[in-house]
Amino acid sequence: MNDLTTITKNIVKYHFGQFVEEEDQIVTEFPLTIILNNKEFATLVCSPSELDELVVGFLASEGVIRFYDEIINLQIDVDQGFAYVTISKQVNTNQEYYSKRFIGSCCGKGRQFYFVNDTKTAKTSTSNLTLTPEECMFLMDQLQQHSVIFKDTGGVHNASLCSGSEVMFNRSDIGRHNALDKIYGHCLINKIPVRDKIIVFSGRISSEVLLKAAKIGVGVVLSKSAPTDLAIKMAEELNITAVGFIRGETLNVYSCPERIIQKSVKST
Amino acid sequence: MNDLTTITKNIVKYHFGQFVEEEDQIVTEFPLTIILNNKEFATLVCSPSELDELVVGFLASEGVIRFYDEIINLQIDVDQGFAYVTISKQVNTNQEYYSKRFIGSCCGKGRQFYFVNDTKTAKTSTSNLTLTPEECMFLMDQLQQHSVIFKDTGGVHNASLCSGSEVMFNRSDIGRHNALDKIYGHCLINKIPVRDKIIVFSGRISSEVLLKAAKIGVGVVLSKSAPTDLAIKMAEELNITAVGFIRGETLNVYSCPERIIQKSVKST
Repeated sequence: MNDLTTITKNIVKYHFGQFVEEEDQIVTEFPLTIILNNKEFATLVCSPSELDELVVGFLASEGVIRFYDEIINLQIDVDQGFAYVTISKQVNTNQEYYSKRFIGSCCGKGRQFYFVNDTKTAKTSTSNLTLTPEECMFLMDQLQQHSVIFKDTGGVHNASLCSGSEVMFNRSDIGRHNALDKIYGHCLINKIPVRDKIIVFSGRISSEVLLKAAKIGVGVVLSKSAPTDLAIKMAEELNITAVGFIRGETLNVYSCPERIIQKSVKST
Repeated sequence: MNDLTTITKNIVKYHFGQFVEEEDQIVTEFPLTIILNNKEFATLVCSPSELDELVVGFLASEGVIRFYDEIINLQIDVDQGFAYVTISKQVNTNQEYYSKRFIGSCCGKGRQFYFVNDTKTAKTSTSNLTLTPEECMFLMDQLQQHSVIFKDTGGVHNASLCSGSEVMFNRSDIGRHNALDKIYGHCLINKIPVRDKIIVFSGRISSEVLLKAAKIGVGVVLSKSAPTDLAIKMAEELNITAVGFIRGETLNVYSCPERIIQKSVKST
């Protein structure tokens, strides 16, 4: 995060019976409109940091691009809140297409997706990674220690990309999905292999969060919060291990538990 | 909330060095597609409770309707996840219109909205309500006591509509905006006056949450979490009192502090 992601403001605090005016740190909410091949495509409400990663990750997540080099030009006008993107191929910028409900063939058969573009972009994990419960707890602890801005303002979601034993990098955003899109964009721009990596996330594992993880391409999602039923179904279908409620010495494994193993049988 | 809002599932828990299989309550994530005058309008991902209120509140919030009686017919197919709505007037169901970025006349002048429909539907509050810090704390405490499903699953946002001294009703949803749309729908269906009411909310006060409160028509929003800078700007413009971080004996007043007063000068 950078200087633009918070502001300072005088507010009225009430503290044990007394009103006092005090300076407070407030998290910034920044509307960024993506103009794709000269047409308005989407407006993301985000924290204004790593905007290039956000745009790249969002476009990949929406199925507009698959690789970073499909982008011919990307210019961000921070003052006005616009990102101008030129890509080589023709793109269907009809937003109705991107949010069109996808109805599976019949109940219980087709994948549990509800938007057309998700069926194109979410990948089934082939990760062979395993990790111990203690590694899960360590990575969650690291995420929380990294999250300085959350301590200041209480207003952002945090996500890390991790290997089995260490945090590779951390992204924060007021929008839960944006934090994950920034990670996706960073991986695409820097060609980071993701198959055996882990997403550690501060928020709930909704179906959208699980799908973002599948699109990024990881096999394990760790959260300190709860998953939804739909996220668990998708995790099972996409062979992703979803671990939630990582708090202190406890955690819950909701899908593909074979990747979370005791120390004695830890793989190399 | 009803039976459909959670499911029971066997999961693997790790608790102080031991894996155990245990039954767990998981919150349901339900895609509901609104078909408006025979055309697909939007898909809401929600908790399947009070779906009629959700649809009515969402359509009002989007500026499609202003009053409940503009709806000629509303049928919900829970099995398939569709809501079929017929309204009397012609409606522009072009989704691009609803998510089109609104660019104000020049910086600092026009309202800080970023979507066209928000400029039509958000109302400036004329509420004369005042309340004490202790009433704010009491209402937040009540919200948390009402939130049974949150205790079970850790997965939903809660919102209450309150008068100055009591909770009128409570709505929960996995989607933060949905909980507020359900409140809006309930108010419209039951013609509840809202000018001097309060929204108490479990989540962060983002600009979207603040706008929902403005659309509902209340003058005070109470949250246990943080606001964003844009939400505070909008609250100032719309004359809404935003109170955050209501925790124990402390709270922060971010806008229009004249409505939060000490006991000795409490208005009737």
